[in-house]
Amino acid sequence: MPASTVNKDLQAERDKGSFDRNEFTLWWVGGKEKLKEKQDLETFLANDPDFHNKTPIHFLSHKELYEETIRQATAIFRKVRKFHEDRGNGDPSNYMQILGGLLGNGIIRQGNPLGIHFAMFVPALLGHGSPEQQAEWLPRALKCQLLGTYAQTELGHGTFLRGLETTATYDERTEEFVLESPTLSSYKWWPGGLAHTVNYCVVMAQLFSKGKCHGIQPFIVQLRDEETHMPMKGIVIGEIGNKLGMNGVNNGYLGFEKVRIPRKNMLMKNAKLLADGTFVKPPSQALTYGTMMFVRVIIVRDTALHLAKVATIAVRYSCVRRQSHINPDQPEVQVIDHLTQQYKLFPSIARSIVFKLTSDNLWEMYNQVTSELDQGNLERLPELHAIACCLKAVTTADAAKSVETLRMACGGHGYMTCANFYNTYGFVTAACTYEGENTVLLLQTARYLIKVWNQALKGQPLGPTVQYLNSFIQSRNNRHAWIDTVPGIVKALQTVAAGKLRLANEHVEQRKKAGYTHEEAVNLTSLELAQTAEAHCRAFLVQSGHEMIEKLCQRVSPALAKVMRTVGELYAYNEALDSIGSLVRFTTISESDINRLQSKLESALLAIRPNAVSIVDGFAIPDVLLGSPLGAYDGNVYERLYEEAQKSPLNKEPVNKSFHLYLKPFMRSSL
Amino acid sequence: MPASTVNKDLQAERDKGSFDRNEFTLWWVGGKEKLKEKQDLETFLANDPDFHNKTPIHFLSHKELYEETIRQATAIFRKVRKFHEDRGNGDPSNYMQILGGLLGNGIIRQGNPLGIHFAMFVPALLGHGSPEQQAEWLPRALKCQLLGTYAQTELGHGTFLRGLETTATYDERTEEFVLESPTLSSYKWWPGGLAHTVNYCVVMAQLFSKGKCHGIQPFIVQLRDEETHMPMKGIVIGEIGNKLGMNGVNNGYLGFEKVRIPRKNMLMKNAKLLADGTFVKPPSQALTYGTMMFVRVIIVRDTALHLAKVATIAVRYSCVRRQSHINPDQPEVQVIDHLTQQYKLFPSIARSIVFKLTSDNLWEMYNQVTSELDQGNLERLPELHAIACCLKAVTTADAAKSVETLRMACGGHGYMTCANFYNTYGFVTAACTYEGENTVLLLQTARYLIKVWNQALKGQPLGPTVQYLNSFIQSRNNRHAWIDTVPGIVKALQTVAAGKLRLANEHVEQRKKAGYTHEEAVNLTSLELAQTAEAHCRAFLVQSGHEMIEKLCQRVSPALAKVMRTVGELYAYNEALDSIGSLVRFTTISESDINRLQSKLESALLAIRPNAVSIVDGFAIPDVLLGSPLGAYDGNVYERLYEEAQKSPLNKEPVNKSFHLYLKPFMRSSL
Repeated sequence: MPASTVNKDLQAERDKGSFDRNEFTLWWVGGKEKLKEKQDLETFLANDPDFHNKTPIHFLSHKELYEETIRQATAIFRKVRKFHEDRGNGDPSNYMQILGGLLGNGIIRQGNPLGIHFAMFVPALLGHGSPEQQAEWLPRALKCQLLGTYAQTELGHGTFLRGLETTATYDERTEEFVLESPTLSSYKWWPGGLAHTVNYCVVMAQLFSKGKCHGIQPFIVQLRDEETHMPMKGIVIGEIGNKLGMNGVNNGYLGFEKVRIPRKNMLMKNAKLLADGTFVKPPSQALTYGTMMFVRVIIVRDTALHLAKVATIAVRYSCVRRQSHINPDQPEVQVIDHLTQQYKLFPSIARSIVFKLTSDNLWEMYNQVTSELDQGNLERLPELHAIACCLKAVTTADAAKSVETLRMACGGHGYMTCANFYNTYGFVTAACTYEGENTVLLLQTARYLIKVWNQALKGQPLGPTVQYLNSFIQSRNNRHAWIDTVPGIVKALQTVAAGKLRLANEHVEQRKKAGYTHEEAVNLTSLELAQTAEAHCRAFLVQSGHEMIEKLCQRVSPALAKVMRTVGELYAYNEALDSIGSLVRFTTISESDINRLQSKLESALLAIRPNAVSIVDGFAIPDVLLGSPLGAYDGNVYERLYEEAQKSPLNKEPVNKSFHLYLKPFMRSSL
Repeated sequence: MPASTVNKDLQAERDKGSFDRNEFTLWWVGGKEKLKEKQDLETFLANDPDFHNKTPIHFLSHKELYEETIRQATAIFRKVRKFHEDRGNGDPSNYMQILGGLLGNGIIRQGNPLGIHFAMFVPALLGHGSPEQQAEWLPRALKCQLLGTYAQTELGHGTFLRGLETTATYDERTEEFVLESPTLSSYKWWPGGLAHTVNYCVVMAQLFSKGKCHGIQPFIVQLRDEETHMPMKGIVIGEIGNKLGMNGVNNGYLGFEKVRIPRKNMLMKNAKLLADGTFVKPPSQALTYGTMMFVRVIIVRDTALHLAKVATIAVRYSCVRRQSHINPDQPEVQVIDHLTQQYKLFPSIARSIVFKLTSDNLWEMYNQVTSELDQGNLERLPELHAIACCLKAVTTADAAKSVETLRMACGGHGYMTCANFYNTYGFVTAACTYEGENTVLLLQTARYLIKVWNQALKGQPLGPTVQYLNSFIQSRNNRHAWIDTVPGIVKALQTVAAGKLRLANEHVEQRKKAGYTHEEAVNLTSLELAQTAEAHCRAFLVQSGHEMIEKLCQRVSPALAKVMRTVGELYAYNEALDSIGSLVRFTTISESDINRLQSKLESALLAIRPNAVSIVDGFAIPDVLLGSPLGAYDGNVYERLYEEAQKSPLNKEPVNKSFHLYLKPFMRSSL
């Protein structure tokens, strides 16, 4: 990145940062070794023309986009594998990480049809396959000699798994399962890579044996011939069409017309079906929870990275763009000098950092609970499940809003596809729906909270994420005393969550007394329940952000610690002001406290202002992954926008054929 | 629409409506005559294959999409013109309405490149052209013998007009203007139709004469040869690239390399330039305000129509989709029976209706103020300007959020482009940026509010939209007494707006005393100022919705009146709960009041539940304009989604060529 060509306003921003940007990067990336690896890989990616699209994919047709994505994804995959092998690191889990995260959302702009192979097919083999099954399938899968996906969702059913309609009926005579799609709505719908890419699939279907249904079980099914790629007999397959985003992912549909598979193709690590058709229950359902939680940790982390990316673009653009005067006798200001612009930009920087810290935190909890699980201790599983559910819901929802706020902070130019907000939005908003629809997840957390609330009332001890309910109950007759430090805000937000939980629980009980069933009462109280789960999650995020930052500050320079604390404060003040209605209800916060909080927020924005570019530089996202003329390191925004326009195929000829075909005859038609 | 094939759940919904859907439609559309005209036109549109895309445009390349849009737009335009002429109605203002509104956002999915001709080029001729200039240009423009656009925004400047850089320098010797683009950032950027469609343009440029700058003036410039469509000498022109939405609009860029135009091409209805280079100021700037306000009224109305469309899609889908049990022993319920789903759907129905009523209200105010203007009375202009600014900002922002909420309420299927949320989002979110960026508009309203606040303090009488400030000042030492009727909520929200205004004004004054200039103080207080303008607008929306509904209830059946009142209540309760933090600060609302308000909101949702389908049916949007498999009148959601998938070019062949080219070699590469 030659400094000589950098936009001077942007260079001036870099010169005024108060901390060492490299120190920030080392922490963000996870140490020297990881940074080196990341930089080597990025250089490798940036320099190989095979990895890039000749024509930006947003100018391609839907079909061309898919074909180009396959070209690009296989080229990257093959060469990245070699890149790692050359360094003596042949572990395919590396490819998984690269394909699923960094590249899937960076260089491959609309998602990676091979991503699902490592993100779900291989984990499904590991999670559900018996040792013999793993021995049969895993080696070829890891080498990509076969490619797979995971088919659960159907046209008529998403989050509610028990409603799935696809059947696998055991035929004892032949020791085979017969897979069938009894209705159109039972067609598998949405799996990534399913349409034209993969040749194998793990299919979730209702197992029937001896006339009895044994619930949803996983089956491995060959979809296409390995030589010709033609669909196997009885396999009805295709793609579901164009989407808001992720059009490279090749989401497909799949119907079964009496497709027979051998008994050994039911994945039997957990439940089993014996040759005579006897069903053997799994010892525990806990392990499937584990996988879901793992995926949710990953989603929170990816969300943080997406936000870092769009914040980088919007912050750099806001330093280069000048618009309007503040003082009429002075030149137009950088738009980042408008306080309203800072309020659009900086909270997302804070969100990105807090979400990343929280995903680290959640990852620690996950590992701890998993190791307890291995010792047969299931105790903390529900708590972890509850916090993972609401974190996935709140971080994806907040991030989706943030991406749009940042995009609109870039005005019209943010609306350009090349600005790369829109592709990012496609990823982030999709995460609000997949892996558990957000409202459903919040209600799952609320169900847990109602349960522990009633435990707390009985004086039972609670897990760390809900311990605050005990304190609340002990002091329930007093309003919580407002203190406007970050730990004070954490306590206040916990009080809000507890107060809302108390009310929601009361309203459920009232409705039950009025004659509703428990489930009806829960449905009628579900708005409050969802809000309660959200409040619980927000308190956790502020707390987790604060504690993780304080831990970090023990081991970084005072200059960086100062910036990180300001980031944590901004996050906390902003969350508090967004919850002001609840704070007024459940704490002693006064009118003058609110004014003070508002001015603390404003001060935090102004404090971050001189460091904003240094922080986003610290995220260390290279231009090749940012992929935006608005956000490039050199800040040559207008030149790059003009260059991007020149890539349009419409600009390759001065007069489009539609003039002669349609426009001219039209203009002459009223002569 | 044959009832025989209608999904039975949807039919059951229709059967339980409590009011006459046709009565609703007659009101919504504006009377029998308009309904007849609308239905005739819709039938005409639905039946002509020339008006539709053979392949859905989301499968086309960027270039193909443009070409197909031109084909479709010219076909529709030509035939709709004939349709009207055959009925003895040859007034081109009709085409304008049809092309700009109904069709632009309906049949033509990604916007209409001819729309801007009638929406801005013709109005610019009318607004800025002298009678002689109109005589020269208008007849050909109205017949579309020439096509134009309006070029104001530049690569480096949007909302801040004074910053525009394009220059028009008068050359007395030849009596010509020389148009120049002194920098890359001065290139015109964004005008619709500019790139490859139009051949004329109204260009806004800084007028220089005798070495002096006379500010921004409009010039008419020929861009392309009428025969060959080749760009004229010195015209640098092309398209700006792919966008999040509206890709049919053909947004372009335009640079001038010393382009000479005759003096008569400066539009001189207002300001003039004499042959000797003498500049003559316009008598008043008021008229340009008028046009801007007109456009904002239209935006509010269009926003209401967009919302009606997506609400129709999401409500119908939510009746057909079944997911999860409420009571475990009963079948899966229609998702519309989940209270959380109702909360995602019904407030948008209410928003659509209240926005439409408010645009009617604003339209009346606009006409009144315009007729006062014609009599030289400018008094109410600033008030109208202020309310139009904030209404444009708040309705577009709320609508953009609502479209996404409704889309996500349809889960994964909402993410499909064919569901038609995403195209609609493209229109609605663009309106947050164009015609005045939303934050800038809110700050304009706030500037007005600060002014009238200080007038009110001096006891001066205020206009109707801000009269509440007088009452607030008279009773300022008392908290407003909370009453939870709709008029009570209006008063409470007005108190909130007034209370926030008082604080913001205080904070501006404090900062000035601390040594900041007025402009710096305003910038440092701008978060509160923007929130104040928003609060003012929200109070106005609830009031306007309430008053217009009460007026309507005088002349409709009791059954319809009852439903409309519930809609108004839902809107008010929802706004009040969204502002609860402010209500607690500025009114006497208590904890039990809040609980009561929450349960009133829940009751309003449940009250709308049985009428939800009848209301959206009442919007009377035909399938051809809804354009969504999720929202079609017959509710055959899954069949239609499957049909849409079959239209994908990728599904025309069982094996895509990328298998042989890339996938197979890749899978073999590690053998």
